[in-house]
Amino acid sequence: MDLFYVHPSDVQLPYLTLRDQEARHAGKVMRYRVGDTVYATDGKGYLFKTKLIENRRQEILLELLDKKFEEPPEIKMTLCLGIIKKKDRLEFAVEKAVELGVHKIVVFKGEHSQKEKVREGRLAMSALAAMKQSLRVYLPQILIFSSLERVYEEFGNECTIVLADETSKNEKLHIEETENLLLVIGPEGGFSQNEKNLRERWKPLIYSLGEKRLRSETAAIVMVDRFRNMK
Amino acid sequence: MDLFYVHPSDVQLPYLTLRDQEARHAGKVMRYRVGDTVYATDGKGYLFKTKLIENRRQEILLELLDKKFEEPPEIKMTLCLGIIKKKDRLEFAVEKAVELGVHKIVVFKGEHSQKEKVREGRLAMSALAAMKQSLRVYLPQILIFSSLERVYEEFGNECTIVLADETSKNEKLHIEETENLLLVIGPEGGFSQNEKNLRERWKPLIYSLGEKRLRSETAAIVMVDRFRNMK
Repeated sequence: MDLFYVHPSDVQLPYLTLRDQEARHAGKVMRYRVGDTVYATDGKGYLFKTKLIENRRQEILLELLDKKFEEPPEIKMTLCLGIIKKKDRLEFAVEKAVELGVHKIVVFKGEHSQKEKVREGRLAMSALAAMKQSLRVYLPQILIFSSLERVYEEFGNECTIVLADETSKNEKLHIEETENLLLVIGPEGGFSQNEKNLRERWKPLIYSLGEKRLRSETAAIVMVDRFRNMK
Repeated sequence: MDLFYVHPSDVQLPYLTLRDQEARHAGKVMRYRVGDTVYATDGKGYLFKTKLIENRRQEILLELLDKKFEEPPEIKMTLCLGIIKKKDRLEFAVEKAVELGVHKIVVFKGEHSQKEKVREGRLAMSALAAMKQSLRVYLPQILIFSSLERVYEEFGNECTIVLADETSKNEKLHIEETENLLLVIGPEGGFSQNEKNLRERWKPLIYSLGEKRLRSETAAIVMVDRFRNMK
């Protein structure tokens, strides 16, 4: 089964329009034809079963056959990680986090980060591809922040902050069923003193991923999987 | 801390020799000089603290200062996965499995695999780099098999086979502390009927990674992490 992405503004039931890359992918690459059944999602919980009724290259018109809404997960996980110097590793982390069902992804510039800029568009494309590939119907938003402090200010009040830490012992965490989680992975180069000091104010829960040093993207994948499996 | 790999045959205590790539990396890239402290492992459990005593470009001579042996893990995990069509994804799976501490990695040609050949050398290099980067002292061996059946014949008697499966419900697995595990990930394209039939003879334990479809390399990472954390 192939899944395509239809922008929510292009859902005007009973019609839906695939555009640009999605239209080219469906029409040129996958060779869907008029009359074929096409599955699409708006990235907001809907799975649409449709029939292709018109193919205009840059635009493919679909007609609704059936739709299904999937409730969002009770615990929403926001993955928060530092910029990774090698961009393919950062894209990989994004891809895997989406596959594993995170709600949002926040990338921050750590004080020890060796890189300043992130190609937001590339990350959004990784997220979109991963959503489609894993047949998910929620498209996580990707947000870039200039510092960890700004992330905490934005999410610290609405989320329970859980910090991945290699050095501390693992205590059993008690996570409420309705909580939203901000899962924070230490950035490449480690936390700066300023970033460490944020713990006093925000009092994150500490969760250990084991004694051995893990790369940022590995820690991110493992952390998300552990918490999605904790429910 | 940087860690270098010294081939076991180049450990002739109190002397150790770094060769080829390891020598170039230590001498040219990292610019270690005579008198510097250098850490090395033989990939068989030893961490050597040494002093650099001679630098001949393609060979660096080290003198032992101290050594430490790390016991192998009680449960040895062998990761078994099918060939992945995109080679960077296969290398990624290898890298992550090593980071997470597997004992061996077995790559088999599934009957539905779209690719025949694996660049064994590249995978070995990924494993070596990952061992060094994560400061591990065991270098997992990488083995290529022509079929899943051959893997089972080789490992089925000495290991408990655990098969990752998306469709089945998760039962609590009871893993003995001393068992060796063969963690089998379904190949791209899924198991063939022949491969499914192997279950009757080998009776693997079934472990579910959740309902959603995961890519091979994601399933591999998550599976290894779950089992290393199960102890």
